[in-house]
Amino acid sequence: MSEESVYGLHAVRTLIERRPAAVRRVILQAGRSDRRIQELIELARRHAIALETRPASELDALAAGGVHQGALARVEAAVPLGEDELLMRLDGAKEPPLVLVLDGVQDPHNLGACLRSADGAGASALVVPRDRAAGLSAVVRKVAAGAAETVPFVQVTNLARFLRALKEAGLWIIGADAEGTALHYEADLKGPLALVLGAEGSGMRRLTREHCDVIVRLPLLGAVESLNVSVAAGVLLYEALRQRGAGGKT
Amino acid sequence: MSEESVYGLHAVRTLIERRPAAVRRVILQAGRSDRRIQELIELARRHAIALETRPASELDALAAGGVHQGALARVEAAVPLGEDELLMRLDGAKEPPLVLVLDGVQDPHNLGACLRSADGAGASALVVPRDRAAGLSAVVRKVAAGAAETVPFVQVTNLARFLRALKEAGLWIIGADAEGTALHYEADLKGPLALVLGAEGSGMRRLTREHCDVIVRLPLLGAVESLNVSVAAGVLLYEALRQRGAGGKT
Repeated sequence: MSEESVYGLHAVRTLIERRPAAVRRVILQAGRSDRRIQELIELARRHAIALETRPASELDALAAGGVHQGALARVEAAVPLGEDELLMRLDGAKEPPLVLVLDGVQDPHNLGACLRSADGAGASALVVPRDRAAGLSAVVRKVAAGAAETVPFVQVTNLARFLRALKEAGLWIIGADAEGTALHYEADLKGPLALVLGAEGSGMRRLTREHCDVIVRLPLLGAVESLNVSVAAGVLLYEALRQRGAGGKT
Repeated sequence: MSEESVYGLHAVRTLIERRPAAVRRVILQAGRSDRRIQELIELARRHAIALETRPASELDALAAGGVHQGALARVEAAVPLGEDELLMRLDGAKEPPLVLVLDGVQDPHNLGACLRSADGAGASALVVPRDRAAGLSAVVRKVAAGAAETVPFVQVTNLARFLRALKEAGLWIIGADAEGTALHYEADLKGPLALVLGAEGSGMRRLTREHCDVIVRLPLLGAVESLNVSVAAGVLLYEALRQRGAGGKT
């Protein structure tokens, strides 16, 4: 299995807490010894994870220019999850599932940004069709800023059939495009949910669209026909979070 | 002055309606004559704008591969707006202003996506510092999908001073970063507003941060330290739209 880098103090800590078995070693920058680095050292020791100290230049190289804050983990590349495995996980979920479905997004930057947003929003999984859509390439992993190693990624053979399975699992299928009948914030996004967005330009395929329980649209008050797909996905995911009261009231 | 392409039926129509004087000519794809194209022809004639018919390949080239739907306008490249001109416009605005401020975003893809979201959200302007930040390059214009010609773009010499001017003009300055005290959806975003986001990685500069009336944070439930800046901007702009009831109740 291949290895990937996850970097940044918060990302490395969260990764150790959630998937300690996947972390092969933690690499810290020589000369750094502040409180957050110390906490990371203790956490890694508690999980018996190998620790190394290296010069900044090596971390820079492993992070491929990303902001690593002196902390980096080398992890087993996450294996894409199987369709049945995701359905089983959703069945056992304590919180109402929030699944992001991208129907044919080909730009790796957009897929990476969507993974990052899905991680931030605590989404259950990101689902894409196996064909004619971007997969987990090196560019995607880099843009995802670590989220490619944390968000369950599911490539399905037949998206329409998988949407039916999600529906049978009790999820409400909400598509988004410019022809939507309701505004996105008028839809109830609190329950078990799959949010479906189409490809840049062409939108959802007809069969995908037909499997949606409702189609919502984002207000577009200017000249553009649509938002960037990763922005639209972020707006929808965070509207669901708002409705769910996520993040804890301050 | 240089010329730019704006394409897509909706984008071209909106552009003619809003800035007819900037449109030098409208180019339609040969062989297309559906209702929406007919409406565009009438609209262009009403504004005495030159109309041309060209093969699809020419539109493809002018749109640089974008989805033009058989309609494209060649327009004068929008001139960046001056600081004083923006302040005057905000003063005379009928709706509560919604200004997006990016403190040092250098990636042209992110700036382009932010312009696109600002257009979609009907934002009053996008403000950036003149130095150490991306300007309106060809890449930015392409990613913005026409929004670089519609969203007032203001490059300011001294961002902290300009934020003070916005505050004196009655705008509430809301910054966003991971250290924010309130969740973004708990803040009141209905009034006159400037939303301030920092650069990828480093965030807002200290002086910028000190000029914010309040700092909000987006919930981050996973491992990533932040969202892509264009996604974060989209989430904040659309939360403001939701609070303002924008898009019309359906």
